Amino acid sequence: MIPTIKWHDSEVWMIDQRKLPNKVQWYVCKRGGEVIAAIRKMVIRGAPAIGIAAGMGLALGANRIRARSYEAFRRQFLILGEKMAAARPTAVNLQWAVERMKNLVESMAECSVDEIKEALRTESEKILEEDIECNKKMGQYGQKLVPKGATVLTHCNAGALATGGYGTALGVIRAAHEKGKDIKVIADETRPWLQGLRLTSFELMQDGIPVSVIADNAAGFLMRKGRIDLVITGADRIAANGDVANKIGTYQVAVLAKANGIPFYVAAPMSTVDIRLKSGDMIPVEERAPEEIYRVGKQRLAPPGLRALNPAFDITPSKYVTAIITEKGIIRPPFRKNLKKFWENSRAPA
Amino acid sequence: MIPTIKWHDSEVWMIDQRKLPNKVQWYVCKRGGEVIAAIRKMVIRGAPAIGIAAGMGLALGANRIRARSYEAFRRQFLILGEKMAAARPTAVNLQWAVERMKNLVESMAECSVDEIKEALRTESEKILEEDIECNKKMGQYGQKLVPKGATVLTHCNAGALATGGYGTALGVIRAAHEKGKDIKVIADETRPWLQGLRLTSFELMQDGIPVSVIADNAAGFLMRKGRIDLVITGADRIAANGDVANKIGTYQVAVLAKANGIPFYVAAPMSTVDIRLKSGDMIPVEERAPEEIYRVGKQRLAPPGLRALNPAFDITPSKYVTAIITEKGIIRPPFRKNLKKFWENSRAPA
Repeated sequence: MIPTIKWHDSEVWMIDQRKLPNKVQWYVCKRGGEVIAAIRKMVIRGAPAIGIAAGMGLALGANRIRARSYEAFRRQFLILGEKMAAARPTAVNLQWAVERMKNLVESMAECSVDEIKEALRTESEKILEEDIECNKKMGQYGQKLVPKGATVLTHCNAGALATGGYGTALGVIRAAHEKGKDIKVIADETRPWLQGLRLTSFELMQDGIPVSVIADNAAGFLMRKGRIDLVITGADRIAANGDVANKIGTYQVAVLAKANGIPFYVAAPMSTVDIRLKSGDMIPVEERAPEEIYRVGKQRLAPPGLRALNPAFDITPSKYVTAIITEKGIIRPPFRKNLKKFWENSRAPA
Repeated sequence: MIPTIKWHDSEVWMIDQRKLPNKVQWYVCKRGGEVIAAIRKMVIRGAPAIGIAAGMGLALGANRIRARSYEAFRRQFLILGEKMAAARPTAVNLQWAVERMKNLVESMAECSVDEIKEALRTESEKILEEDIECNKKMGQYGQKLVPKGATVLTHCNAGALATGGYGTALGVIRAAHEKGKDIKVIADETRPWLQGLRLTSFELMQDGIPVSVIADNAAGFLMRKGRIDLVITGADRIAANGDVANKIGTYQVAVLAKANGIPFYVAAPMSTVDIRLKSGDMIPVEERAPEEIYRVGKQRLAPPGLRALNPAFDITPSKYVTAIITEKGIIRPPFRKNLKKFWENSRAPA
C-alpha cells in the first residue's frame, strides 16, 4: 500500500484522494497554507490522516517563518496553528495535532528557532508513526470481536487512506483477515463523496480482502436478510459520554444495526476522544457545499437552481454503540465512566 | 407538467426518465416488445406508471397480432401478456394491468379481433385516466395528514413521473401545497438511480413547491435535528398484512422515522395491494445490475473488478407504517383487518 502522506525532502506529499481510484497521483505541498487548503478540499481526509497532515503542515509552515527571536517565531506559528485548526471543524484529531505541535513550541522557549523547526518536523513524523502503531494495536484488540467467517459492514473509509496507514475500522478488518478469519466486507458507497465506493473498495481489493459495495440505501435491507454480522466504523470525534461524530449516514447504520440485533463497533485512537465535551450534541457538524450532492464526478445531475443540504457528519448517540475499539483496549458501556478511565490511563506516563 | 406516457396516433410515447432532468425527450414505442424493453431499462418507472405502460404496451402489441380467429389472437396475446408481466418483478401494478387486459380479452370471445383491439386501446386509456383520478383522490385524503408549515421527507420519486400524472406521495404533497399549507419538501436523492435528485426535484420545482435534496445518508441526521415532520413515500407492492415493498432505502427511512417519533405514511392506489400475499417476505425483490452502483452517469468511479450488490427494493414491515393513503381513504392499523375491508369495498360495484 502506498503511504497516504509523507515527507519528501522538504515537501509534504499526499495521495490526492479526490482522484482515486481512477488516478493515483501525488499532491505536493511546499507551504503550510497549501496543507490547509488540501485538508479543506479533501485532498486528504479521515480524522487521523488530517491530524497527521496538520502536524506536517505546521512543521512545513514553520520552516518558512523568517523570525529570529523565539517570541516572533511563536507569534507567527500560533497564527498558522489557528488557521490549521479551523481547516475543518468536526474531527478533533486536527485540533489535537495542532495542540501537540503548539505545546512543543511552548516547551522550547530556550531553544533556537532552527532547533524548534527541526523538532517540529520530528514531532510530525512521530505523530505519523504513532498513528500507524495505534492502528495495529487497535487491530489486535478489535479482531477478537470479529467471528470467523463473518460479514462486516463498514461505512465511509476508515482505512489506511484515512490514517497514517493500516486504518482504524479497516485496521480491525485487516487484522481479522491476517488471522485467517475468512471474513467478507460490505462497504457502504457513502454518498456524497463516495469514500466507500472509491477508497474502501480500492484498499481492500489491493489487500485481497473480499469486498462488495452497496448503495447506502441497501444496508438495512441486508441486515434484515441476516447478511451482515457486525458493523465497524471509524470516528471523527467521541464525546465524554460515548456519543460518536462520524461521516454522515453513520447514525442511520447504527440505528438499523440496533433494530436488527447486530453489534455496532467504533474503532478510533484515543486522540479522537474529546473528553471536554459532555455529549455529542456539542460537536460542531460541518456543512459542505451543495455541489457535492448534485454534481457527481464531473456531471451535473439535477435541475438548475436546485437547493441541497449537505451535512458532512452526524452524531450517533452512545446507546447505539456496542463498544469502542482503541489502541488501549476495548471500551464498553457505561461509556462516561469507562472513557474517563481509559482517557486518564492514556495520559499516564508509560 | 408534460405527461409521463401517452398515445400518439398508433404509437406509445413516454418521457425517457433516464435522461431527466438534463434532457426532456420522448421515447417512441411502435411495438409491444419495445414497451417491455422500456420498462426493463427504466425508460419509464414507478409502480403505477409501469402498470399504465403495460396496458398500453399490450394494446400496442395486440394491434400487430395478425390472427383472424379469436383463439389464435387470444393465444398470441397471452404470450405477450406473460412477457409483459415478467418485465420487472416487484411492482404488482404491472401484473395487475396485465391481468386486467387479459380479463378484457377473455370477456370478448364473441367479438371480432378488430373490436378486441379497439377495446384494448380504450381500456389502456381508461387505466391511465383512472390512475390520475386515483391520485387526486389520494391527494385529498392524504393532505389532511399534512400539518400547516410542515416539512415532508420523501424517498425516490412517487410523483407524476411514477404515475399517469399528479403522483401518489407527491400527489399528497401537491394537494397540501394547493391547500395553501405552506409546506416544504426534503427529497432523498435515492441512490443508485437518483430518482429524488433527478426526478422529484424536477417535478416539484416545476410546480413551485420548495424542495431541497439530500444524500440518503442525511435523512436520519435531519430527523434527529427535528427538521422533518412527517415522511410520505409510494409503494411497489403492499402485502395483506401491510408490509410495504418500495424503493431500496425505504425500510431505513421507516426505521429512522420510528426511532425519532415521526409518522411514516405510504401513498398508493388499491391496485398496489396484493391481497394474496400474506406478508412482505413473499414479495420478490429485483436485483439490478452492479453497474448502477459503480457507474454514476457516464463515469466509472470504482476500481476495475469491483463487486457490488444492487437490490432495487426493500420491504418495510407494517409495524413501521403509520397509515396507508389510498383513493378509497386512509387505512390505519390493524392493517390485516383494515386492508381486507378496503380491498373488498374497492371490488364492490360502485
